[in-house]
Amino acid sequence: MATTTAAILVIGDEILSGKVGDQNAELLIGELRELGVALRRILIVPDEVETVAAATRELSVQFDYLFTSGGVGPTHDDVTIPGIAAAFGLPLVRHPELERNIRDYFGERLEESHLRMAEMPEGTRLIDGPGLKWPVPVCRNVYILPGVPEHFRRKFLAIRERFRVEPFFLHVIYTQEDEFDLAAGLTAVADAHSAVAIGSYPNFASDEYRVKLTLESKNLSALESAVTDLMARLAPEHFVRAELPVVPAS
Amino acid sequence: MATTTAAILVIGDEILSGKVGDQNAELLIGELRELGVALRRILIVPDEVETVAAATRELSVQFDYLFTSGGVGPTHDDVTIPGIAAAFGLPLVRHPELERNIRDYFGERLEESHLRMAEMPEGTRLIDGPGLKWPVPVCRNVYILPGVPEHFRRKFLAIRERFRVEPFFLHVIYTQEDEFDLAAGLTAVADAHSAVAIGSYPNFASDEYRVKLTLESKNLSALESAVTDLMARLAPEHFVRAELPVVPAS
Repeated sequence: MATTTAAILVIGDEILSGKVGDQNAELLIGELRELGVALRRILIVPDEVETVAAATRELSVQFDYLFTSGGVGPTHDDVTIPGIAAAFGLPLVRHPELERNIRDYFGERLEESHLRMAEMPEGTRLIDGPGLKWPVPVCRNVYILPGVPEHFRRKFLAIRERFRVEPFFLHVIYTQEDEFDLAAGLTAVADAHSAVAIGSYPNFASDEYRVKLTLESKNLSALESAVTDLMARLAPEHFVRAELPVVPAS
Repeated sequence: MATTTAAILVIGDEILSGKVGDQNAELLIGELRELGVALRRILIVPDEVETVAAATRELSVQFDYLFTSGGVGPTHDDVTIPGIAAAFGLPLVRHPELERNIRDYFGERLEESHLRMAEMPEGTRLIDGPGLKWPVPVCRNVYILPGVPEHFRRKFLAIRERFRVEPFFLHVIYTQEDEFDLAAGLTAVADAHSAVAIGSYPNFASDEYRVKLTLESKNLSALESAVTDLMARLAPEHFVRAELPVVPAS
């Protein structure tokens, strides 16, 4: 079962300079996980055409989907569309359907500057979704989303189901065992169960447990086999508790 | 006045998979801004040696400082140290001062696995700071910080003052003018004042203003000149309010 992968590219001087906090990558982390898509990179860059172009090129070839956030307004600091066009060596052309949307929206107030918002890299498709006034532009595998969090959320939620694949299953074990003592056993289990991702996270914030172990896979029987293997290597006197994977009703 | 630049590399499957939220990049965004350091990239990657190596190589040559977060524990998913070593083609060697720290700390409980924590890329320096039990390892321009937020914070705060440079000055203008109508003026001001970074952020969450404009520079007189230029281009009837830069007492 091939894993579907994704990256997020956030274009925003305002985030790097601490003027506003990121909300869009944060939303997508949870959404993609729930959809079964493996998020492999989050990259936050300044409003620079060449930087957006280089990042788009690199991330779009490495992963199945690239989601961009921000930089799509009408001002000088909105460089995402030219950046994506430059990434693929595509000219910017006026998209007829977007032009129609903009003419309908502005009516008699229409100015030439409004129509610049209809310019997209050649070959850009538009995806519609329930409740969307404006469609989501998609250039190759790059889904172009706005930076304003309310708009980002509405647009992503309207198109999210098209990304759904098999779910991840997660098994969590809490133990009082020391991470140093766990290390060799974890390495052995990780080596023996390549379909299972195993994480180890020390906890210093409370006395309840010393280490949280996570085992995760799309393959439930591979996951169960890794859990059995690992449990046999843990010191039972240090075991605290476990959270079992939630299996969707069939 | 050359700008000092930085990047943050977060190594963490647990963040990309939504098991925990990032707190370390969030802390550094505010800290670096306050210190006058321009943050240019935030990159979050999985626990993969080659990925950490490639990211370290790329970010460390482009920017003055690279701060890494996470992946420095004793288990199989802790790949930051080998990743940084691979980035620079350096062997891992046991650092004598770290070895001494570890031997002192564990005393009679010492095991061989503990000493693996003393392995660093050859040439790694250690930086001490007030209140630190463990120093911060620095390999070339890469500052290696732990993923556990309490430890990350304590370590960074202990060494932060060494990064301080001239401050940024920020001027914020709120207006009811439409972003489309502002675009041409903003482009002209941005072109004429290259030492000033100008941002434009539409607001849909309240009626108080339609667009927030930010002007930012390390050069206060360049900033004031750009503000004067921009104010002359804004429609006075749409002006809402401004926040002036805070100038440090001399």
